[in-house]
Amino acid sequence: MLEESNNWGRWGAADERGTLNLLSPEAVVAAAGCVREGRTLSLSMPIRGATSSPAPTTVPHLRGRPLPQHFMSVDGGDYAAGTRAIGAGLKMSDDALVVTPHGTTTHMDALCHMWSGDELYNGHPAGRVRSYGAQRCGIDKAGPVVGRGVFFDVPALRGVGHLSATDRIGPDDLEACGVDVRPGDIAVVRTGWPLVWQDGPDAYWAGQPGLSAAGGRWLAERDVSLVAGDNAAIGGLNERQLADEGLADDLHMILLWRHGIHLAEMLWLEELAVAARTDFLFVAAPLRIEGGTASPINPVAVL
Amino acid sequence: MLEESNNWGRWGAADERGTLNLLSPEAVVAAAGCVREGRTLSLSMPIRGATSSPAPTTVPHLRGRPLPQHFMSVDGGDYAAGTRAIGAGLKMSDDALVVTPHGTTTHMDALCHMWSGDELYNGHPAGRVRSYGAQRCGIDKAGPVVGRGVFFDVPALRGVGHLSATDRIGPDDLEACGVDVRPGDIAVVRTGWPLVWQDGPDAYWAGQPGLSAAGGRWLAERDVSLVAGDNAAIGGLNERQLADEGLADDLHMILLWRHGIHLAEMLWLEELAVAARTDFLFVAAPLRIEGGTASPINPVAVL
Amino acid sequence: MLEESNNWGRWGAADERGTLNLLSPEAVVAAAGCVREGRTLSLSMPIRGATSSPAPTTVPHLRGRPLPQHFMSVDGGDYAAGTRAIGAGLKMSDDALVVTPHGTTTHMDALCHMWSGDELYNGHPAGRVRSYGAQRCGIDKAGPVVGRGVFFDVPALRGVGHLSATDRIGPDDLEACGVDVRPGDIAVVRTGWPLVWQDGPDAYWAGQPGLSAAGGRWLAERDVSLVAGDNAAIGGLNERQLADEGLADDLHMILLWRHGIHLAEMLWLEELAVAARTDFLFVAAPLRIEGGTASPINPVAVL
Amino acid sequence: MLEESNNWGRWGAADERGTLNLLSPEAVVAAAGCVREGRTLSLSMPIRGATSSPAPTTVPHLRGRPLPQHFMSVDGGDYAAGTRAIGAGLKMSDDALVVTPHGTTTHMDALCHMWSGDELYNGHPAGRVRSYGAQRCGIDKAGPVVGRGVFFDVPALRGVGHLSATDRIGPDDLEACGVDVRPGDIAVVRTGWPLVWQDGPDAYWAGQPGLSAAGGRWLAERDVSLVAGDNAAIGGLNERQLADEGLADDLHMILLWRHGIHLAEMLWLEELAVAARTDFLFVAAPLRIEGGTASPINPVAVL
Repeated sequence: MLEESNNWGRWGAADERGTLNLLSPEAVVAAAGCVREGRTLSLSMPIRGATSSPAPTTVPHLRGRPLPQHFMSVDGGDYAAGTRAIGAGLKMSDDALVVTPHGTTTHMDALCHMWSGDELYNGHPAGRVRSYGAQRCGIDKAGPVVGRGVFFDVPALRGVGHLSATDRIGPDDLEACGVDVRPGDIAVVRTGWPLVWQDGPDAYWAGQPGLSAAGGRWLAERDVSLVAGDNAAIGGLNERQLADEGLADDLHMILLWRHGIHLAEMLWLEELAVAARTDFLFVAAPLRIEGGTASPINPVAVL
Repeated sequence: MLEESNNWGRWGAADERGTLNLLSPEAVVAAAGCVREGRTLSLSMPIRGATSSPAPTTVPHLRGRPLPQHFMSVDGGDYAAGTRAIGAGLKMSDDALVVTPHGTTTHMDALCHMWSGDELYNGHPAGRVRSYGAQRCGIDKAGPVVGRGVFFDVPALRGVGHLSATDRIGPDDLEACGVDVRPGDIAVVRTGWPLVWQDGPDAYWAGQPGLSAAGGRWLAERDVSLVAGDNAAIGGLNERQLADEGLADDLHMILLWRHGIHLAEMLWLEELAVAARTDFLFVAAPLRIEGGTASPINPVAVL
Repeated sequence: MLEESNNWGRWGAADERGTLNLLSPEAVVAAAGCVREGRTLSLSMPIRGATSSPAPTTVPHLRGRPLPQHFMSVDGGDYAAGTRAIGAGLKMSDDALVVTPHGTTTHMDALCHMWSGDELYNGHPAGRVRSYGAQRCGIDKAGPVVGRGVFFDVPALRGVGHLSATDRIGPDDLEACGVDVRPGDIAVVRTGWPLVWQDGPDAYWAGQPGLSAAGGRWLAERDVSLVAGDNAAIGGLNERQLADEGLADDLHMILLWRHGIHLAEMLWLEELAVAARTDFLFVAAPLRIEGGTASPINPVAVL
Repeated sequence: MLEESNNWGRWGAADERGTLNLLSPEAVVAAAGCVREGRTLSLSMPIRGATSSPAPTTVPHLRGRPLPQHFMSVDGGDYAAGTRAIGAGLKMSDDALVVTPHGTTTHMDALCHMWSGDELYNGHPAGRVRSYGAQRCGIDKAGPVVGRGVFFDVPALRGVGHLSATDRIGPDDLEACGVDVRPGDIAVVRTGWPLVWQDGPDAYWAGQPGLSAAGGRWLAERDVSLVAGDNAAIGGLNERQLADEGLADDLHMILLWRHGIHLAEMLWLEELAVAARTDFLFVAAPLRIEGGTASPINPVAVL
């Protein structure tokens, strides 16, 4: 109805498709070389969406966010109650999902997710982020993330099960993890905070550990392509679930806005911690939601 | 509210997490070895969800299916109109997605998607697929798909831009592609049908090319782990958008139900066709939607 | 998160609640006096929202609009398949509705639905209509509509089953209906166009009959409080489903924007036509959707 | 796709449309005669659906229920950011609503909402309530409710601002209200509980006052057509938000299931309490959601 509607040709042409050039071809080949055991780990929490049950509230999420809803539009119960099969006997189930990724599930942020002033990352006008979606810096522009994952298991370093709400991860912690970080690497940072959910929502909502501004800058200086964490905001949160840093030190501002480093949040890193591998092939492919501010993802570590 | 609600512990424990054992560890290592160029291709169509514009109707989909809806819950337009920034100046965009994957976008089917009689694949009771989701054979049980992709570019073989609506792909075609298929491989089958969308919805809805029953059996005998196609139903469709085969020859029955071979449909394979690579690392990580009948995916080929 | 979030007190206080002062108290009493037979008619089409069936496409709607989706989150089929009852034996069904009212079902427009320039009706700044909803002129400000309905059955006047797509209803038609219109009345205008849906969507989408600009002005001059029609846009539509009039003559501009006369569209008026009553008590109570641009309604005629 | 899809003709024919014969024609005429002042009151709470703000959590609701979501698909902010007007200058806003009525907002229950055993109200088979909606006893069968409202202001009777969580309303209270109840009347029962929301969610969730089983039977014996309350479940709730009564004494079982008396819950009755009118014209018109288990409503009292 408005002038902005895309036409089919826009995405059909190879040269216009979103691509996040995370790594040189050589680096992608090298990342594939990290596959030594042949084991595959999902780094995602489940999406639990039952509407008429408290189940969705039992998965870690930020307070007040709209939880996923999952609906079955035809299911085995219908056939048990007498619905006829299709044709000679075919039966099927079908469903729908309603999801707001930020704060509710494992997801990757688009570069349009946060900014200050009137410009997104790299000077794109913020006014192009409208109700029809982000015409600039949407998640459809990110492309699949394929590269070398490097793991910073901070609780293991400190000898604790998980960090505490007020813990901040600085350059010293990152250095002490002894990881050889190369440009283009995917930095996977564990706080262990999702484990706190087992003590109830109030414990989880009491604040969150995360990177300090200096920690964020340390990663940015090493030119990582993506920072992925198991906390909700990469940086820490206070008990009101807000970042405490000023604008200059805000982790989203440092990484996403100034450096164009994508963020992935709310990962599940417990099996990876058990595996204790510091490098691996990391793949995360955000859904190509045109103009999306994020996508739910199921990131994969291939060990 | 009902007895079926899962608790957090169910997914937290490593040994209960969904895993699709597609391949032996050795085979995963071998698949990673297919990465020779270091190029990454997305094999997904875009998800175009604007509600107040005809944009969503411009992406290939089956007639009558509910199209994705994408909503911005705060965006740059709000700030242009005077919304105050957060704290010292942080601005953000946020959004929500409503999606029914089957027939509307690139997705992977769960094993619970189709069956006959009272049992799902492997004898699981179909009555466990209820409104709260599939307690058996849901997409959360599939786990990430990581393996060696093998490409059957049938239009290239036949020297056409795309197959026609009544074309069926049989064992001869698959043989003629000259692909060395190994157990656990991901078979990626191109028909070129999405290109027909450029001629309008009616052309796309006139039917669809796809695998014949014999073609499906040929793949099943080779023990592939996943069959991925750029058409909407792996098998062909008639002008009413239904499969013509009887129950014994239905492609979903052969592959999904009898053999437990997952299906991925509505991929975008045009760049892969240009690349003309017959083997590559294939990664598709369905969202861990508990009890889901499918997940939208952004499959990745690493060349 | 932003500054605009309402607090509970805003709607709790009696003097701040939305009220559409349609009529003087005396006129409401007089409208109640139109109840002579004691018969109640619903003037609404059904909301048909099944997702995994073509059912929703079988109800009149404008082409390309997202159709309603209705999901059962627990139902009788689940119990048939073995779900346990609550406590000593209570069973329940529960559901959810996704609805975009404009163009898909019987609804009432808010005053914020259309405007020109930078101001809504009555000079309210259009910039207050943002992603969190319309802070000005939202449907929550309309309040229930209770008044005297007056019926213009134009097909009956012209001796046809329904008007044709290019028919426009002018002052002469309205005059000829012989209705005694008083200030505050609800003008209910029948075209019969929903009957055309029986001939298929293409027939319905070929255009639509409706009020001419002069017809709209005739009603505005008589100071009606609401114009309700069984067509999709009060005015007529061409075959591209757009209004043909210039801005000055656009029916939404004349009625909604300049005069603040609410509009209700896509009513079902066939039983009212059979009843052949020209005045009655009309009640339509839009849902109090804060900041909504419309609400689905089930308007009632009490004869 | 399945055999149950309705066709358009089903609702088109006048004699098949849902109608709740609440009252004889004489009684509807008499109800209209209750309009003496000409004042109209909305008895609904607002639907507050902003997604990226905590606003929705600030309206009374039961814990754990999915709150409404309201999305603007085009708004004034877009135009402020540069979106072009349509044609010569038309601008518009459009939106969508996702709503699960039970426990989240003012709504009316369908007769299919609760049952015991295998039969709904009046012996309808519960197995006809499936994923496509309730084929029996859906909210589309209820029809508009138009009748004489009678008001039981129990807090006023007891001289308190609102009842306490453990208070139950029995026959004595109802008798003491001094209301002349006639067959077909709509019983509107005030507890004042929504006022407790001002003290925070935990206060509201500590339990709820409501009708006792004997109170419910007292109303059923008087053959009311609808019981409407400002609490969440007509009966009381304990601190786990469940009814404490056994199956025989459960208020939904007594009223909805055994007697076919519809229920409306979560009304806002504070202005009506101030008005102190004991009889009035009551109108509530549930949306004609085919197969719905409930509908959000905006009930109206015309004084």
